[in-house]
Amino acid sequence: MAKELKDLTKRAENYSQWYNDLVVKADLAEQSPVRGCMVIKPYGFAIWEKMRDQLDKMFKATGVQNAYFPLLIPKSFLSREAEHVKGFAKECAVVTHYRLKTSEDGNGVVVDPAAKLEEELIIRPTSETIIWNTYKGWIHSWRDLPIMCNQWCNVMRWEMRTRPFLRTSEFLWQEGHTAHATREEAEAEAQKMLKVYAEFAEKWMGVPVLQGVKSETERFAGALDTYTIEAMMQDGKALQSGTSHFLGQNFAKSFDVTFLNKENKPEYVWATSWGVSTRLMGALIMTHSDDNGLVLPPRLAPIQVVIVPIYKGEDQHAALTEKLTPVIEKLRESGVTVKYDDSDNKRPGFKFADYELKGVPVRLVMGGRDLDNNTIEVMRRDTLEKESVSFEGIVERVQALLEDIQQNIFEKARTYRDEHVYECEDYEEFKQRVKDGGFFLCHWDGTEETEAKIKEDTQATIRCVPFAYEQTPGIDMVSGKPAKCRVIIARSY
Amino acid sequence: MAKELKDLTKRAENYSQWYNDLVVKADLAEQSPVRGCMVIKPYGFAIWEKMRDQLDKMFKATGVQNAYFPLLIPKSFLSREAEHVKGFAKECAVVTHYRLKTSEDGNGVVVDPAAKLEEELIIRPTSETIIWNTYKGWIHSWRDLPIMCNQWCNVMRWEMRTRPFLRTSEFLWQEGHTAHATREEAEAEAQKMLKVYAEFAEKWMGVPVLQGVKSETERFAGALDTYTIEAMMQDGKALQSGTSHFLGQNFAKSFDVTFLNKENKPEYVWATSWGVSTRLMGALIMTHSDDNGLVLPPRLAPIQVVIVPIYKGEDQHAALTEKLTPVIEKLRESGVTVKYDDSDNKRPGFKFADYELKGVPVRLVMGGRDLDNNTIEVMRRDTLEKESVSFEGIVERVQALLEDIQQNIFEKARTYRDEHVYECEDYEEFKQRVKDGGFFLCHWDGTEETEAKIKEDTQATIRCVPFAYEQTPGIDMVSGKPAKCRVIIARSY
Repeated sequence: MAKELKDLTKRAENYSQWYNDLVVKADLAEQSPVRGCMVIKPYGFAIWEKMRDQLDKMFKATGVQNAYFPLLIPKSFLSREAEHVKGFAKECAVVTHYRLKTSEDGNGVVVDPAAKLEEELIIRPTSETIIWNTYKGWIHSWRDLPIMCNQWCNVMRWEMRTRPFLRTSEFLWQEGHTAHATREEAEAEAQKMLKVYAEFAEKWMGVPVLQGVKSETERFAGALDTYTIEAMMQDGKALQSGTSHFLGQNFAKSFDVTFLNKENKPEYVWATSWGVSTRLMGALIMTHSDDNGLVLPPRLAPIQVVIVPIYKGEDQHAALTEKLTPVIEKLRESGVTVKYDDSDNKRPGFKFADYELKGVPVRLVMGGRDLDNNTIEVMRRDTLEKESVSFEGIVERVQALLEDIQQNIFEKARTYRDEHVYECEDYEEFKQRVKDGGFFLCHWDGTEETEAKIKEDTQATIRCVPFAYEQTPGIDMVSGKPAKCRVIIARSY
Repeated sequence: MAKELKDLTKRAENYSQWYNDLVVKADLAEQSPVRGCMVIKPYGFAIWEKMRDQLDKMFKATGVQNAYFPLLIPKSFLSREAEHVKGFAKECAVVTHYRLKTSEDGNGVVVDPAAKLEEELIIRPTSETIIWNTYKGWIHSWRDLPIMCNQWCNVMRWEMRTRPFLRTSEFLWQEGHTAHATREEAEAEAQKMLKVYAEFAEKWMGVPVLQGVKSETERFAGALDTYTIEAMMQDGKALQSGTSHFLGQNFAKSFDVTFLNKENKPEYVWATSWGVSTRLMGALIMTHSDDNGLVLPPRLAPIQVVIVPIYKGEDQHAALTEKLTPVIEKLRESGVTVKYDDSDNKRPGFKFADYELKGVPVRLVMGGRDLDNNTIEVMRRDTLEKESVSFEGIVERVQALLEDIQQNIFEKARTYRDEHVYECEDYEEFKQRVKDGGFFLCHWDGTEETEAKIKEDTQATIRCVPFAYEQTPGIDMVSGKPAKCRVIIARSY
């Protein structure tokens, strides 16, 4: 373990390796024997749980209810929406049999050919098809609308190149699916959920995001509009962190879902879907962490404060514990998660490095001299600043510090992001600079050809038409044609 | 909808049909187009969420941490533990391919034969194998123990005959998997989790359970001991509601998981696993509900109190709302979930029947005359008793009533259960009576032969060796041989 702490690759050396190392060393996740599928370890899962619980509250506050739809989708469902099947058919895990039998040599099991399914089933890559097939039975009149369901579940997209949290064959996510009587209401819902995601990312994860709308090429398969939040990682690459789709009447038409409007006339239902996944863990890690390990926002840290007494002998141990107990209790009463680590089987230096690696936001250390002087040492993980302060008022100081760290890491990330958004009008310059990361605010003629050329030349893609920047007239730097809009272009995860 | 309310089958007519009807009519769940898989609707899922959140708290209070392991398990893993594969091979959903492609006629998608997996993957029916394969990497020394992980997830067991919640091909559950240094510690853990389940069932679900240990035949595939909680439904049948397994060193041996003990010698790790599933929803429904619909324990009811004002015209509506608002606020402040239903698009009679069907524990109704008299009508769902009471002190009355209902439905179910536990020493009598339901406390010679004969003759099975009843000496009623123990025998779900 002590060795592991030292072995973390430096970001400047190899950012990608640093990320992979950190995920493992901070006990967040590890590869499983199943290709592209990971094990989320307890410490990583505790962070995900906090994210999930907060998002869940925010969804419910907008009137969304949770439900659960089947894992398996009949193959034929996928084909009903033409764009949808194009988008997902190439990465589907397919269930073809429902039984194993003992192999002839008796030493193992083989698929039982007699137990072949009549129609193959797909492990859901996303659930629009099965949900709209279900909504058909739920929706008859305008009185049945809106329907706003969400499910927290696992999905499977067979990816060829995987990275923990960022791109895995199986991942955990939530998918919201709403049904509305009017186009306006559905569009407003898709935009509302984008705002929920943005608020969560910024206020809880401390991750600044650009909100915007995707180009047609980058849309969700089957959507009329895909809204996105795009975060910038420390290497300047974009990470699409959440998407919300206005699906129009596409799925209603594919699954024949109509309602009688107030004039008693049948109309197709309007739809949205929206999702965030364990990918957010990747955004969280890559936005804040450093060469010593994780840096976690206090609001999502499984342990917010660790208190380490440094003692010689049981008397001092007891004296420190007695002194610190009221602090622990008061912090806990105020809702702060505190770990009191007075274990004697690890050296303090080891503990310090381990809690830094794990991103615990605040560390308090107290030793014999502190007892005499009525002082305590406070370390904040985000800046690694250490300070010896009076023991009096330590509870309030820690509470304020947690707030300050939450704010500080967001501001720091936002400053970094803002410093790496470049306006660029020259394609040669763009090609040169985009390799080093950053978001490029460029005029675009709105054609797929230009989009494809940029991708081919630079691997960078149009991330979105951002809402935060003014739409000025201009010339497309690639085609030289008049621009349709300004977009953010970047290399991405 | 109004029609649906009336169409609920009576329990006395057809208990099984009543259950199926109720699940659908109370908006708990419905069949999906995928064989044996259900859609859990928002109202049903809200109950499951409450169950899950409470259980999760109770698990964490014992030191258990949540994690997440892959959905898919390599086929070869299953074969490693001989009993385990025997138990699960016959009901495995098998993934054989990872891609679809456009069919030749261009109108659909087919499995791409070029995308065949080298080794088939099984959708987890339970996760001992993949988890113990993972634990191998986590456990080296006694210092790494115990490990206590739980996951909330979906599992798949391809069932031929399915019923909503009770037996479905896909279901939601939690599976705890713990690893220990000693046999004693693992046995104690398995028993501790059984106690957690029993406490949850009785205090939260209001479902009395018999705790006991399974016969060898009825054990979990791969366990040395399976502990169980058995509940009695209103038709006298048993419902196995949760199980906790002492797995010995079986999985540690199959996956070669050893640790260095304090003497630095390698030993195999001791294991437990334990789980409850959406099956608990079936137990909840069948224990308390009646011919008018669901009866829910207040602690798990998504809506605990519904308040229906009865008004003519907007003035009276406003006056009632003004009068009731402080009650709603005070109840909500004290943690009670209140629905204020002043919608004017449904008649009061319809609302009453609907909330009865949905099992809302307490209904308050207030009309114009109540306003004049400063009274309010209180209805409790468990007994359907209605009472007009003074408006003063209504908040405290409702709070007390919720507690009383929670207690009352448990006592009622316990009395029913206790009245239907029969001591029986005569096999002819047993065969006659067991058809009508009930738990039969009988002496058993401990042989598989006797167990098999009882099952063949009566469809009843040995549910458990119950802890609550004294183990008296006696004679096996089937074989006439001296008994090894006393067991509970019953027909079951």
